[in-house]
Amino acid sequence: MATDSTIMDSNSFKPEDAVGLDESTQKLIAKRELLGQSYRLFYKKPLHFVKGLGTKLYTASGEEYLDAYNNIPSLGHSHPAVAEAVAKQLTLVNTHTRYLHEGIVDYASDLLSTLPDEINRIMFLLSGSEANDLAVRIAKAYSGGTGFLVTQEAYHGNTDLISALSPSIGASQALAIDARLIPTPDTYRIQPDNLGQWFVEQIATRIEDMNRHGIKFAGILLDSIFSSDGVFPHDKNGKTGWLKPVIEYVHDQGGVYIADEVQPGFTRTGDSFWGFERHGFVPDIVTMGKPMANGIACSGVAAKQDVLEAFSLNFPYFNTYAGSPVAMAAAQATLNAMRDQDTLGNVKRVGAELKGALQSLAGSTDLIGDVRGAGLFLGVEIIKPGSTIPNYPVAVELIEAMHEQHVLCSLCGPGGNVLKIRPPLVFSSQDVDTFVTALEASLKSVR
Amino acid sequence: MATDSTIMDSNSFKPEDAVGLDESTQKLIAKRELLGQSYRLFYKKPLHFVKGLGTKLYTASGEEYLDAYNNIPSLGHSHPAVAEAVAKQLTLVNTHTRYLHEGIVDYASDLLSTLPDEINRIMFLLSGSEANDLAVRIAKAYSGGTGFLVTQEAYHGNTDLISALSPSIGASQALAIDARLIPTPDTYRIQPDNLGQWFVEQIATRIEDMNRHGIKFAGILLDSIFSSDGVFPHDKNGKTGWLKPVIEYVHDQGGVYIADEVQPGFTRTGDSFWGFERHGFVPDIVTMGKPMANGIACSGVAAKQDVLEAFSLNFPYFNTYAGSPVAMAAAQATLNAMRDQDTLGNVKRVGAELKGALQSLAGSTDLIGDVRGAGLFLGVEIIKPGSTIPNYPVAVELIEAMHEQHVLCSLCGPGGNVLKIRPPLVFSSQDVDTFVTALEASLKSVR
Repeated sequence: MATDSTIMDSNSFKPEDAVGLDESTQKLIAKRELLGQSYRLFYKKPLHFVKGLGTKLYTASGEEYLDAYNNIPSLGHSHPAVAEAVAKQLTLVNTHTRYLHEGIVDYASDLLSTLPDEINRIMFLLSGSEANDLAVRIAKAYSGGTGFLVTQEAYHGNTDLISALSPSIGASQALAIDARLIPTPDTYRIQPDNLGQWFVEQIATRIEDMNRHGIKFAGILLDSIFSSDGVFPHDKNGKTGWLKPVIEYVHDQGGVYIADEVQPGFTRTGDSFWGFERHGFVPDIVTMGKPMANGIACSGVAAKQDVLEAFSLNFPYFNTYAGSPVAMAAAQATLNAMRDQDTLGNVKRVGAELKGALQSLAGSTDLIGDVRGAGLFLGVEIIKPGSTIPNYPVAVELIEAMHEQHVLCSLCGPGGNVLKIRPPLVFSSQDVDTFVTALEASLKSVR
Repeated sequence: MATDSTIMDSNSFKPEDAVGLDESTQKLIAKRELLGQSYRLFYKKPLHFVKGLGTKLYTASGEEYLDAYNNIPSLGHSHPAVAEAVAKQLTLVNTHTRYLHEGIVDYASDLLSTLPDEINRIMFLLSGSEANDLAVRIAKAYSGGTGFLVTQEAYHGNTDLISALSPSIGASQALAIDARLIPTPDTYRIQPDNLGQWFVEQIATRIEDMNRHGIKFAGILLDSIFSSDGVFPHDKNGKTGWLKPVIEYVHDQGGVYIADEVQPGFTRTGDSFWGFERHGFVPDIVTMGKPMANGIACSGVAAKQDVLEAFSLNFPYFNTYAGSPVAMAAAQATLNAMRDQDTLGNVKRVGAELKGALQSLAGSTDLIGDVRGAGLFLGVEIIKPGSTIPNYPVAVELIEAMHEQHVLCSLCGPGGNVLKIRPPLVFSSQDVDTFVTALEASLKSVR
């Protein structure tokens, strides 16, 4: 899922920032005391949005912001088709999966049609966390093992099981005793001739270590674009496909490959509907979430029949709200709109424009070390000039400066220095101009 | 959360039941193959609802059913105030908790006002499973222990952590190695003079056993009405308050008391807003879910400040859709309607009518061994005549017969023989008549 835990500690609001904020903002912040300290706000000047439309968000005082951060409202904020589908279904019926309903089976069938034929089963849940929690349990049941591999800056969710497979939460969160970390395939700093082979070698040494400790290997859980690790879609030659040897090796070792598509799925990369497709292989399990229903809680675990059956023949599983008529109506409306509006085509076209513009901009500043990405998921390395060293303080300043420019963006990567650019999929050429202009101005302001 | 896992194995549809069903039902069932075998349908003749209103559900062919089972649409199916609140918010904005929004803080404050003053923090999540998962992690952080106690037929959710604390899922699901089971306080079969003291003694022997194995006791997770254990609201003298000695003992032993209010909360018992209040104590943590937003995914973990801080000062926690403006709008509309419609008063009045009518009915049949309950959460023991032995086959027949009478009901308890009656909170006196008439006819049909 690779979201935002690094960020929670980087560009998050601190109590001392409250001085000088307007009274209504201060009041809203003070009231959040009731939520406890796990809740973090973005920015020194937290934002209070009361309206959203397309790629824009509007504050209580009517100021407009361009959203280059939020990947849940994939079709844009307040998409009318999703709002209408939900509103309509709420006046009809909203029960659960122990009664028959056409919504769940029609959507299941439609969604599976976007996946390779071998992946022919789907279970619905609410969050990416729940999806990864179940996927790991399925993988353990199928493999008979317990040992899991994740990357060193991975974020896959917030349940007990998945937090322990999410090193980016930070040192306070213990990793699973039978888990091992593999290095980020950091193509900016490590450029092996054969990235796939390098990655397999990293995996091999961790599995050897598991075996040495009497841990049976169960599988690997990888975000197909390494979102929280810093966004790594290509090898040094700009090629995809380098994850294919990984699944071959994982299968050789008796493990299960789980593709975490919570962030790269649903046309985000512009190359294909799913992120793993760019690498030319079929995972054993695919987990999905965030953009699935444009903001209504909905996630999924798709799997090969035989892999799922190791779990489903033995365990009943019920999830109260998941797969409900309302959730399915929202998800179906989202999928329909993705096709009707050709988000895949838009992401490919506009993503290329954005990447090109960012590469041009990189030529004019020594603060940008690398521009990479696929479709509308881009990473920009903010570095100490003349090096590849992460420039975390300047990156944070930059995000705050973008805020002043009324553009929302955030950070990722182990160094917390990579601009994480993943706007709604309906981002336009005009939005690209706005974004790049704001970034250019922000870069000047931090020097 | 104590829901329906027993039931999934009792009155669930089996493939061989398909013979003789109408073509469209058979088609819908066949399409569910895509969901895998974990998904179970209720009844030999599964129901396909396309419309719900108040306490009634309507099938595709227009037949009306009285709903005495579903506790998620607490205000009744398709409640207009909730539908309107969600529809409206979806046209405004639906972001997440890292931006300010008045919805979450206003609802947090309002919801906490229903809880004792000592419980002054609330975190929002999506499902009861997520809530219990987080609550157990908080309890472990606060106590420094790992050992947890649950009752022998408990159901608290579906995550990896919580499945291992949910024995009712069945033998295929391993319990946590550091968990221990305490017996169901089965007041029908075990009638100690002092139920609280008896329960404490059971707990004491389990904690002793934990200590003997080097496991530090972390806490206890109890559904305040023991829903999946078979519904136990009173001691043999009809008194409440017997859980109070439990929390005192748990605190003496350094543990945390988590009240799972997913089912008994939100006025369900008719005695008070929360189930634990009937017992005159303040838990350390309260988890809630199902009825919270009348069908929109929303759950919560409320806690004492110092208990929560053991977690929140050390761990960032982010839940993508949880606490979103739409979820909060639905939850606020639900809470408002509960007050406006005085569900507490309705539950008390109608629940007493229902219990009285069931007790009368029990006098006329030797199949009913016990009628118990609080408010609109009732349990009716179906037994082998002249004994207290669970009569599982007849109980299942009875549920199917109720289906023929167009009334929805289900089963719980270790013997799978307890009618679980927990209709929407807006159940009326007329609904009571319909229910009891249908049960009377069904009892005759199974003899």
